[in-house]
Amino acid sequence: MPRDLASLVAPRSIAVVGASPRPGSVGGEVLRNLQACGFEGKIYPVNPKHREIGGLRCFATVSALPASIDLAVLAINRNIVLDAVAECGEKGMRNLIVITAGFKESGEEGARREEKLRGLIARYDLNLVGPNCMGMITSTPQMRMNASFSRWFPSGGQIAFVSQSGSLGETLLECFEEAGLGVSLFVNLGNRAGLTENHFLAHLAEDDDCKAIFLYLESFAEPTEFRAWCERIVREKPIVILKAGRTEAGVAAVASHTGSLASPDAIVDAFLAQSGVLRVNTIEETITALRALERGVLPAGDRVVILTNAGGAGIIAADACERVGIDVPPLDSEIRAELSGFLPPEAGLGNPVDMIATASAADYENGLRATLRAADAAIVIFRPPLVLPDEPEAVADGIVRVADEIRDKPVLVCTLSRAETDVVRRLRAGGIPVYAMPETAVDALRFFHCARDLRREPVRDEKVRAVDLTAAQRVVASAVKAGRTGLFFHEGAEILASYGIPVCRFAYTDTPDDGRGLVSDVGYPVVVKIDSPSLHHRVELGGVVTDVANDGELDAAIAELRCVIDENRLEGARILVQETLAGREMIFGMERDPAFGPVVMFGIGGTFVEALKDVAFAVAPVTVAQATTTVRSIRAFPLLGNFRGQPAVDVEELGQFLSALARLSLDLPQILEVDLNPIIAAGSGLAAVDVLMTLSPEAG
Amino acid sequence: MPRDLASLVAPRSIAVVGASPRPGSVGGEVLRNLQACGFEGKIYPVNPKHREIGGLRCFATVSALPASIDLAVLAINRNIVLDAVAECGEKGMRNLIVITAGFKESGEEGARREEKLRGLIARYDLNLVGPNCMGMITSTPQMRMNASFSRWFPSGGQIAFVSQSGSLGETLLECFEEAGLGVSLFVNLGNRAGLTENHFLAHLAEDDDCKAIFLYLESFAEPTEFRAWCERIVREKPIVILKAGRTEAGVAAVASHTGSLASPDAIVDAFLAQSGVLRVNTIEETITALRALERGVLPAGDRVVILTNAGGAGIIAADACERVGIDVPPLDSEIRAELSGFLPPEAGLGNPVDMIATASAADYENGLRATLRAADAAIVIFRPPLVLPDEPEAVADGIVRVADEIRDKPVLVCTLSRAETDVVRRLRAGGIPVYAMPETAVDALRFFHCARDLRREPVRDEKVRAVDLTAAQRVVASAVKAGRTGLFFHEGAEILASYGIPVCRFAYTDTPDDGRGLVSDVGYPVVVKIDSPSLHHRVELGGVVTDVANDGELDAAIAELRCVIDENRLEGARILVQETLAGREMIFGMERDPAFGPVVMFGIGGTFVEALKDVAFAVAPVTVAQATTTVRSIRAFPLLGNFRGQPAVDVEELGQFLSALARLSLDLPQILEVDLNPIIAAGSGLAAVDVLMTLSPEAG
Repeated sequence: MPRDLASLVAPRSIAVVGASPRPGSVGGEVLRNLQACGFEGKIYPVNPKHREIGGLRCFATVSALPASIDLAVLAINRNIVLDAVAECGEKGMRNLIVITAGFKESGEEGARREEKLRGLIARYDLNLVGPNCMGMITSTPQMRMNASFSRWFPSGGQIAFVSQSGSLGETLLECFEEAGLGVSLFVNLGNRAGLTENHFLAHLAEDDDCKAIFLYLESFAEPTEFRAWCERIVREKPIVILKAGRTEAGVAAVASHTGSLASPDAIVDAFLAQSGVLRVNTIEETITALRALERGVLPAGDRVVILTNAGGAGIIAADACERVGIDVPPLDSEIRAELSGFLPPEAGLGNPVDMIATASAADYENGLRATLRAADAAIVIFRPPLVLPDEPEAVADGIVRVADEIRDKPVLVCTLSRAETDVVRRLRAGGIPVYAMPETAVDALRFFHCARDLRREPVRDEKVRAVDLTAAQRVVASAVKAGRTGLFFHEGAEILASYGIPVCRFAYTDTPDDGRGLVSDVGYPVVVKIDSPSLHHRVELGGVVTDVANDGELDAAIAELRCVIDENRLEGARILVQETLAGREMIFGMERDPAFGPVVMFGIGGTFVEALKDVAFAVAPVTVAQATTTVRSIRAFPLLGNFRGQPAVDVEELGQFLSALARLSLDLPQILEVDLNPIIAAGSGLAAVDVLMTLSPEAG
Repeated sequence: MPRDLASLVAPRSIAVVGASPRPGSVGGEVLRNLQACGFEGKIYPVNPKHREIGGLRCFATVSALPASIDLAVLAINRNIVLDAVAECGEKGMRNLIVITAGFKESGEEGARREEKLRGLIARYDLNLVGPNCMGMITSTPQMRMNASFSRWFPSGGQIAFVSQSGSLGETLLECFEEAGLGVSLFVNLGNRAGLTENHFLAHLAEDDDCKAIFLYLESFAEPTEFRAWCERIVREKPIVILKAGRTEAGVAAVASHTGSLASPDAIVDAFLAQSGVLRVNTIEETITALRALERGVLPAGDRVVILTNAGGAGIIAADACERVGIDVPPLDSEIRAELSGFLPPEAGLGNPVDMIATASAADYENGLRATLRAADAAIVIFRPPLVLPDEPEAVADGIVRVADEIRDKPVLVCTLSRAETDVVRRLRAGGIPVYAMPETAVDALRFFHCARDLRREPVRDEKVRAVDLTAAQRVVASAVKAGRTGLFFHEGAEILASYGIPVCRFAYTDTPDDGRGLVSDVGYPVVVKIDSPSLHHRVELGGVVTDVANDGELDAAIAELRCVIDENRLEGARILVQETLAGREMIFGMERDPAFGPVVMFGIGGTFVEALKDVAFAVAPVTVAQATTTVRSIRAFPLLGNFRGQPAVDVEELGQFLSALARLSLDLPQILEVDLNPIIAAGSGLAAVDVLMTLSPEAG
């Protein structure tokens, strides 16, 4: 799938089809941007109405252009754009940016136009960005190219920015500029008829100019590819995503905006975490996270020290840390003694360290150096007071010095002001992330921790248990052959057993002795129930008898259920006796999401799932580590601990089962859904007590 | 308690004690600020070393000053400040601002100095701000006074800002200035030896220059007074608070910062909500909330319409709305038809309404007018596109026009840029809150809704049930007389019954027939347990027998418990028979907080309280409405609904009980704590099954 995008992102020559001297013309803006940005290659305007634009010779048609132009940017009327694309193809051009709108986003006629465009892309094997996009920007030490109609040309930097939306892309570029964040590459994907975010991820994986990647997406072009590229890239550079269409209201807006189908958000959250991608929710969070991560230093641990010359702001920072679970540990006596050697007696030597308004540049430098010994990162609050013993710039220089010495521990500075002072500029130049507000600095620290945890998380499994795929396939094949979409309990149990997921002990009562045999193993009480692949609401129908306590009750229960089978004409139904398990109830599930494929689900007990919707998801494949993270992520997780005399449930084992269920879903695509409700933790063991599996009607 | 602060906040003459021409001198800064701000009254520098400062005649001592000066600002050495305060008192001055530090915040000697200062305040009946403060600012059409050493003098406005911290106060003033928020009054309370936030609240309640109040506090000077003033004020003007010391880490910082004891934060949250105060967590939220609330228009309902010319930003806004539970309803066909009459076919007529980049000023105006019919508020996203049919200012004017017509529905504008353009200035001048980011506009809307809900909430109860205080007092008095700090079950039950809180049916088994009599009423099974005021861990000791199913088991249980009583020498212990109640378990509790007084607690079932800490608090007094809000606020609240065949628990009744428990705690201060664990909802009724009440050892 990777395509060579080198001559697209760094072309030596560019044709601007639809260039115009008219103000407000999009093609004209692209040409003016190209000329203004310092692009050093050749530029060829194309427009039949002009002989010269912006001092450049203008060509009447694409066909009239010289050969071997690296890139064509098309900003012409929707009714002639397909012809121009074909002309480019005939001319041998490989790289196109189609800015023109009027495709999939604008109704049926546009959708047909886009279908034709896809045909041309395939026919001429084009690297095509768009249509309906703003263009592309490259800003590296080697290349400055603004092949877009964006009013903002970002300063060079190390962040690559891939945006599905044009207007939001431009908004974010403006925010980046204002925040002093440099961009190495910006591309607006538009309708993604040709290149998608995945092609650019593949390119950026090898791009040394880029140290961090930021994506704005409203939907995923192809989630599996996306995940694979992200898993690979995040070992080296962090990926941050602003994924819109988070919620129901957002989904409605996405649907009308780009015609894409957005997926339920809990699944998106799980998918992104599994991919190693840091999700931000807002534009502010985007800026905060990128400012932190553009340098690439990630702290090893969670301890932070807060230094301040303004007490109240230190409290606000400490509050914010506690709120998001960042450790602000007290300082040990040795460091306190060292601090008290140079700070005045009024200073607060807790954490935050309140150095009070008289703190000098030396105090900041020595205080930071001393306290960083006991922390993994520092938040330094510095607001020049009325009377300062030194120039404020000296404080900045001292902080930069310490940060340079101790490179593996991020130092964040908070200035309590949005003003872009010399102090701020000096700190930024020294590679220090500077924030106005203490709470924002704490957010940044949280993003540091997230990015680090995502990088640490193993992407592929090393603890996978063996499965008996053949046995499982045999069970599925026989049900398909019998023309069934439902499975008998014993079939589901056999499939689960092939994947190492245990089921409670059970027996069929085709003869009364069968049931008695199980009882002699497990003892009374037992559960008796109807097993029929076509019966989904067994309890409502009276198809389950619990607490069966002796032989007489067992016979009575079997007789009763026979009546139910007869009354409801449940052909082929059988009667099942199961051991009674008492313990904590959990739920496992599997469904197939139209966008993400198989998704597994975990929840605790009926009450929590039904009334509190306390469930968590993971997208297959799911590593055991990811699966245990999923298990731990539900709110009621503490209930699985050592609680009220019951031993803790084995979370690693739950993770193994959930991971195995995900493998099962990938191995056996005929299985449409799985519902294990409940799985019971009794003593130290776990077993599914009810098993519902449905095959796809198309499986046959 | 209210004091007349008129001549403090708007003095006609001010003495600056410690004025100096030296740069960096605090007293000198105060003098320069007073002269620079346009203060029209008389200014009297006091400093024995100078005969003239800043063109003003300088006085050697306070005693040398002319009589009847309205206000003295003291910024002199800590060793002479008390003498100066006394001189001011002798001189008949009533209003003092003591900027000097070196009091309670700086150790034992400082604490003694502050004690002496309190003596002087009482002796001379002073309105004293500080000590250890930054000063005070007034900025109204009638008065401009910067009696502080703040570098920021806010533009006049309608927000009064009371800050416990000086450095954070100044930071916030700078942020306000930057955000275009005007302040009518700023005061930094410092150590609050004299005036507290409550004195200023009392003053602001009657101050027509102030339309909204903002407080930064690290602790409450006197919570009960605070609540009473807030309850009164929020009927008329919103109060916003940034309360630091939210979390454990914050508490440590607060303790070292001001020597105040911060309270557990869940109680603070409850207390502020009960007081009608809107709590913000960060400086950004402060700005967002005040920008929304300074105008005073609160929306009637929760429906919002989003209009945009940039699709992606509309999605981000809709996502943010959904995340915080704001309703973004689809538009009805009539409004859609109206919109399609003037918007192009590519426009999205859902909600968000995506008017696309070509939207004109008329589109914005007509679109806003049409859609506001079906909404209670609007978020208008306007980012001038490359080509706009009109001047961007025309769009602003159209929005202001509609907002002026429809005054009861807030219109918030989001510009997708921090730039302070003419558009932004024009919108602000028209009273429109303008935000850079869509998510911030949504935050603002959330604050609108909170402020409205807080205003709606009844402050005093109209549904209080009668209580039998005499009966309850009699029970307490008899236990106190007996020298006990524990109560028997029947005593606790009697007190609860006096407050309308029912207890399960029970009987003592002083003779075996007593137990049988209860059984003939309630039937088997019953619970038998030891009742002893000195026994707190009854279950652990084997003091409870459940599921007692017949007369034989009852006799056996009684005999068994008699043995337990004898073995453990539980003098005076009795044996109790109770009906068995099955149903949903809840917990009620009452404790006395050192800062807030009696606090009641509510939780569901042992599991949720023990493992998930899912409990909620309210500070006495608690209205029934507040109590039902408390009940609803726990995460597991859905479990109290109609669930798995059990009828919904009567939440109003729970509210009555929780409110009654709070009254009980105020009426009977001898009761130290109450623990009703569990209260059981069986069928449609509720009854406490276990009652633990402890009296204060000092009650006797």
